[in-house]
Amino acid sequence: MTAAPELNITAGSARSPKSLLAEIQAPIRRDLDEVSREMQRIVSSDLPLVGQVSTHLLAMRGKLFRPTILLLASRVENTPQPRAVTLAACVELIHLATLVHDDAVDHSALRRGMPTVNSLFSHQISVIMGDFLYSTALTRLVGLGDIEALHALTRASREMTLGEMRQLAVIDALAFTEEEYYALIRAKTASLIRAACEIGALAGGSGAGIRETLGDFGENLGMAFQITDDLIDYIEAKETTGKPSGLDLREHKVTLPLIFAWRKAASAARREIEKVFGAEKPADGDVARVIAIVGEAGGFEYARECGESYASRAREALTRLPESVARGALDSSISYVMDRHS
Amino acid sequence: MTAAPELNITAGSARSPKSLLAEIQAPIRRDLDEVSREMQRIVSSDLPLVGQVSTHLLAMRGKLFRPTILLLASRVENTPQPRAVTLAACVELIHLATLVHDDAVDHSALRRGMPTVNSLFSHQISVIMGDFLYSTALTRLVGLGDIEALHALTRASREMTLGEMRQLAVIDALAFTEEEYYALIRAKTASLIRAACEIGALAGGSGAGIRETLGDFGENLGMAFQITDDLIDYIEAKETTGKPSGLDLREHKVTLPLIFAWRKAASAARREIEKVFGAEKPADGDVARVIAIVGEAGGFEYARECGESYASRAREALTRLPESVARGALDSSISYVMDRHS
Repeated sequence: MTAAPELNITAGSARSPKSLLAEIQAPIRRDLDEVSREMQRIVSSDLPLVGQVSTHLLAMRGKLFRPTILLLASRVENTPQPRAVTLAACVELIHLATLVHDDAVDHSALRRGMPTVNSLFSHQISVIMGDFLYSTALTRLVGLGDIEALHALTRASREMTLGEMRQLAVIDALAFTEEEYYALIRAKTASLIRAACEIGALAGGSGAGIRETLGDFGENLGMAFQITDDLIDYIEAKETTGKPSGLDLREHKVTLPLIFAWRKAASAARREIEKVFGAEKPADGDVARVIAIVGEAGGFEYARECGESYASRAREALTRLPESVARGALDSSISYVMDRHS
Repeated sequence: MTAAPELNITAGSARSPKSLLAEIQAPIRRDLDEVSREMQRIVSSDLPLVGQVSTHLLAMRGKLFRPTILLLASRVENTPQPRAVTLAACVELIHLATLVHDDAVDHSALRRGMPTVNSLFSHQISVIMGDFLYSTALTRLVGLGDIEALHALTRASREMTLGEMRQLAVIDALAFTEEEYYALIRAKTASLIRAACEIGALAGGSGAGIRETLGDFGENLGMAFQITDDLIDYIEAKETTGKPSGLDLREHKVTLPLIFAWRKAASAARREIEKVFGAEKPADGDVARVIAIVGEAGGFEYARECGESYASRAREALTRLPESVARGALDSSISYVMDRHS
């Protein structure tokens, strides 16, 4: 994915997101490679179909952002334990399980530029494969006997399903409030990133104080992460079309830029927005017009500011930790979250 | 559901399945009522949609067979602990989660005579609601801090998803062997009933010996349970039509009666069977003809004998336990499994 500089309204560092991520992951590179191998070991089974789906899923694995954060969190006091790798692998598998079910629910065809499990195999297989990934990760976690880590992860999983239910429960999308949006993304995204940080603290043998601080960092980072993700959907040009996809708009998902713009919109603009939300498959031109309306109303700047506000809180939390290479990398991860494009 | 005496080829006790179940549940009736209340408490959430789906699911709850077995298992040494109720509620919620996902995968419209979550709400809601039930039950289990119970249940959950994957992986249904069938139902059904018994033993403070015996009992009971369930699909007349539904045949699911009949079938009979498996929606007459072919080939008797063989092993396991009211009720539960009609 290439960035579209002309649409990039982020403050941005000089470095590319890719090189910044490499820098963040440098202190834990070997462990991170081990996480990938551990994920393969955990999902291995004698059933060929499971092997095929797993291979596909692990091939399309993303940037291992949650394992990265977990492993760094385990090192803020320089006392990482070997089980951190297994814990990180389980967190990523649980994340993968939710992606597989999200794609099944949304009938998405692509994820990270590769076909989704539901499109490549079948809808049925994606439902059961998500269940397999989740129950397999939990079986491995239970095998570690770490009840605190289990507590953090099962609670986060429950929160994520409640977040998805919140999304499915929206009947009048345009009545969705800013508070409801925050509750949604806190459940859907921030909960697991928070859990990854808390589990990292546990795997680093840190006490309750550091754990709470890292949890606080993770939750705010997660909020900034999702707000930025939702903003990217409005502003980042697609390589193929040169225009933002506006996928959320097409799927009638209301995110922060639109919530802000809707509040300020005059009746003509509201009619344009309602047109997109009234159409099962909105026309490209109508979607583009709503994106322009949201931009002109200041929706992008507002979302950017809200994201920055959460990013600041994440940064502030880190100042409560002792100085270390890991803390520096966690700090850079905030910049990465704010500046990445996809 | 009424039984169809003329099609009943079971050896059968004189008692009706309903009165037999009441007798089995009598020693634990109060705990069982508490299980229902505990299930409600565990799934409670401030999201109205979750409340609506939960209310529907708990209203259509079945006979609480797994909680019954778990509670009885916790009493074989007369030392049940209060947490048995919570454990039983979690086991039933995990069972419900798999039913919700099974119905989503099969696009089933009815379950226990009531509309499924996918038909009454939506397919999306059924996927996420299954995830919610599962992660909520696990969160509660983790709260109990009982790592042994967690071990038994996460392993069983993983087995169940592998069982479902086995079913989805079948490409040439008629090449499905008896061994593959047993592997499938062991994973899909027997694993959770085994886990319920093991967890009951844990909640009764029983040692490894009793626990293993109860697990052995549960696994064989679960095998007999599923074989009988699959037989019922062939032989029990539906109240509405007076004819067996043959639902598995219609869905191209190969179970024991057909596996036996297929092995023995001459080419004319095989062509009739292939016709049903080649049609997306087989005609009622074709389904009825295959049911008759399977019956004439002795497929029903064979399945009945195999079920009885597992039932005998379950009975034998119980003889290794001290005599008690609970043991007697567990023994009756074998008769119930063999004689029930739906």
